[in-house]
Amino acid sequence: MMTDFEKNPRQDVISQLHHFAAVGDAARVKALLSYSPSLVNAATDNGWTALMYGARNGHLEVVQVLLEEGCDRSIVNKSRQTALDIAKFWGYKHIANLLANVKGGQRPNFKECENYFGLTLLDRRSDKRTDSKWLSQKQSHPTTVYILFSNLSPLVTSSGGIESSQQPEVKLCRLSYKDVEQWMKQTEEVTLVFLGVELQFHMNLLSACNGKVLQEVEEDGLVAWFALSVNSAEKYKQEHEDHYFLHPPMPALLQLPEKEAGVVAQARSVLAWHSHYRFCPTCGSATKIVEGGYKKTCLKEDCPSLQGVHNTSYPRVDPVVIMQVIHPDGNHCLLGRQKRFPPGMFTCLAGFVEPGETIEDAVRREVEEEAGIKIGQVQYVSCQPWPMPSSLMIGCLAVAVSTEIKVDKNEIEDACWFTREQVMEVLIKGNQRSFFVPPSQAIAHQLIKKVLHREGNKHPLFKKTNLIILIFK
Amino acid sequence: MMTDFEKNPRQDVISQLHHFAAVGDAARVKALLSYSPSLVNAATDNGWTALMYGARNGHLEVVQVLLEEGCDRSIVNKSRQTALDIAKFWGYKHIANLLANVKGGQRPNFKECENYFGLTLLDRRSDKRTDSKWLSQKQSHPTTVYILFSNLSPLVTSSGGIESSQQPEVKLCRLSYKDVEQWMKQTEEVTLVFLGVELQFHMNLLSACNGKVLQEVEEDGLVAWFALSVNSAEKYKQEHEDHYFLHPPMPALLQLPEKEAGVVAQARSVLAWHSHYRFCPTCGSATKIVEGGYKKTCLKEDCPSLQGVHNTSYPRVDPVVIMQVIHPDGNHCLLGRQKRFPPGMFTCLAGFVEPGETIEDAVRREVEEEAGIKIGQVQYVSCQPWPMPSSLMIGCLAVAVSTEIKVDKNEIEDACWFTREQVMEVLIKGNQRSFFVPPSQAIAHQLIKKVLHREGNKHPLFKKTNLIILIFK
Repeated sequence: MMTDFEKNPRQDVISQLHHFAAVGDAARVKALLSYSPSLVNAATDNGWTALMYGARNGHLEVVQVLLEEGCDRSIVNKSRQTALDIAKFWGYKHIANLLANVKGGQRPNFKECENYFGLTLLDRRSDKRTDSKWLSQKQSHPTTVYILFSNLSPLVTSSGGIESSQQPEVKLCRLSYKDVEQWMKQTEEVTLVFLGVELQFHMNLLSACNGKVLQEVEEDGLVAWFALSVNSAEKYKQEHEDHYFLHPPMPALLQLPEKEAGVVAQARSVLAWHSHYRFCPTCGSATKIVEGGYKKTCLKEDCPSLQGVHNTSYPRVDPVVIMQVIHPDGNHCLLGRQKRFPPGMFTCLAGFVEPGETIEDAVRREVEEEAGIKIGQVQYVSCQPWPMPSSLMIGCLAVAVSTEIKVDKNEIEDACWFTREQVMEVLIKGNQRSFFVPPSQAIAHQLIKKVLHREGNKHPLFKKTNLIILIFK
Repeated sequence: MMTDFEKNPRQDVISQLHHFAAVGDAARVKALLSYSPSLVNAATDNGWTALMYGARNGHLEVVQVLLEEGCDRSIVNKSRQTALDIAKFWGYKHIANLLANVKGGQRPNFKECENYFGLTLLDRRSDKRTDSKWLSQKQSHPTTVYILFSNLSPLVTSSGGIESSQQPEVKLCRLSYKDVEQWMKQTEEVTLVFLGVELQFHMNLLSACNGKVLQEVEEDGLVAWFALSVNSAEKYKQEHEDHYFLHPPMPALLQLPEKEAGVVAQARSVLAWHSHYRFCPTCGSATKIVEGGYKKTCLKEDCPSLQGVHNTSYPRVDPVVIMQVIHPDGNHCLLGRQKRFPPGMFTCLAGFVEPGETIEDAVRREVEEEAGIKIGQVQYVSCQPWPMPSSLMIGCLAVAVSTEIKVDKNEIEDACWFTREQVMEVLIKGNQRSFFVPPSQAIAHQLIKKVLHREGNKHPLFKKTNLIILIFK
């Protein structure tokens, strides 16, 4: 033993780390990694890592510590299992949930642009949409959450912040079945949409669920969310003075907590579809809503829309390209403004993707149509749902190959090249005297910000290297 | 002079190159670059390149040679002009066109995945859609091209190939106003969509247009294309035995020449919208088609759809995610099949992007729903319009963080991990005994092919490096 230790001290430390992970000693795992952070992903001969040992024996805290230390959860052992596979196999649901929540974690393995309206706290569980028994049980379940809409605006409440100089923080009013019971019977006047179940695994709730009564109604432990659109809420508002509908939606919707924004994006887009698509577009007849609010069926028996699958029955999502156009010199970007914008505001050009068109060609077409600039390379960056009413903003960088701007006054009011320094003045120093850009919740803001992260005037290389580095850093 | 030459031979060769470019000696430009290819982008003190000199003096052949040699057309001179700016300024339209056609050229500066249905030979010229005078002039113009559709299938003809063992090549029948005149008067029964104008600059045509007569009707020299959907074409088919409608559309539509495929994608998607969205979905009334076929207006005076801008008036494009799922070990990929597929066919998983959802989350949701696999990083690769009836296939690579497959039999019939070697057998060696994948015209095929281009089992690095290299090589 002693000889082995002296021969291979690193191997011994790995064995110790794995031992601490296997027995659930999170404190020692953490302490050991603080001295030897490089061991976080070290594996034994059979390919097992500390994360796998922690997951195998159901040690939640060990798994948490390892994720915080930046371990790689996608490593597989010799049996081709990941830590998540192992946790699932041995029935540790809370650990499986933690490992599966790949966008969570303190230090994720990868950096994904997370734009406002793109984060959510729900798992859509589309499989439940056709399970009418489950849906109807959940509708009246005491843990179920309702969010209320009127005229496509959500019901919210302010959470303090009045005294501070900051924008007041608003949050969704999370109502219960009791709160909404009055409307649920007026089926003609309300629209109900199943949004999904809470993503977070409710360990507190589960540990509280030892009583038999709660377990019977709570078989699956899932907290369902519904959106309810109502015509009139006067009585409710009289009884709840601090609750109000966020209207007009823009820019008010940008004040929500990040994860509620995604829920509102989903709900508002589906509700807008119901409000604008009441009749069957194929034959003009009335329709009924089915599948938890995600499908519409024509009520006319011989309508062609009832034969085969047609997009007329499903909610609409409109793909839009929005692009940061970069000057061939790599040091300027193109921003434009529409007449309806507040004075001084400039932003990225954007436009709807047309039928039969690629994302890249839509970028080229829109920039040339609106500003007369020719585009070469186009690079996808990230996207953002935009519930006005149901767009998918596809954010790109686009490299110009011409420089002379020719504005189409029918489309936009103006477009100019701005220098990196000008953008920096506005974004970093907050000097908005000459112009300003949309707030950080808009993907346009995030795209414009990317101009700052680039190195300057290395233009011939810029297309091939900097652009790529920029996107992945 | 002699001293200068000896001092800086490289500078002298650059001067020679620029001189040959400026005087239009394409042969000498080419010869010189064959000895010194590194000089192709070399610039003078004022930042001028050979391409700029060629463009400045209108030497088309010089510009062609330089593009073939892989010159960088996005370089700017000290006056911030690109070669394209210079060609435009001095009025050399044919050169400007060549330089602006950034996806063309023998060796483009960047490699963009060009999927079937994503290439076109038209510039949409959406500005002309509201120019009813121009549209009506073009409709009866002798150079205008009509493509005919019946039941959403295009009229085509076979071009030989019957004797060869290859699939017969079909191509669109390009009809003239005279050919379609009989239908154009039956406005109730036909649908007309303006598709755009030909991208190619018609130099032959222009040089032939010296006669005054032709110039009068041909002010802009643009060759317009229209799609015409008709109910009955029996008489026409009797007169043209070799013309037929491609039906059923799949897989027949995959036989078209590449650039015609994009035109058909555009036309079929818009025509499908007209055929399924005949009535106003907001009020159920009849509608009329305006703006060259790209807008529908409700005929009921007080319809809410007439106030403000609503997506009910515009063609629908459905974003779909389609993803190549890569095993955490980097050496397997996940393919699935639906019941309706031909026996033995496997392909990438796919699904519609839902309202309020990002592309990346749609990938994660669909893979988990259909195959029970958890996904970490998601990377956009390329996209493809898919006119069945109007999808935008958004192609991604997705890295799995779990490995145990759990198929949802309601969604798919089967899903399996395939090794790199298995995929190689099918794609490279053409051995389709065990399974096969969709043809190369489908983006799924292109995504599956990417698995082959990766280096094997370097999994911890794979996510951070190989994936990125893979996408950009």
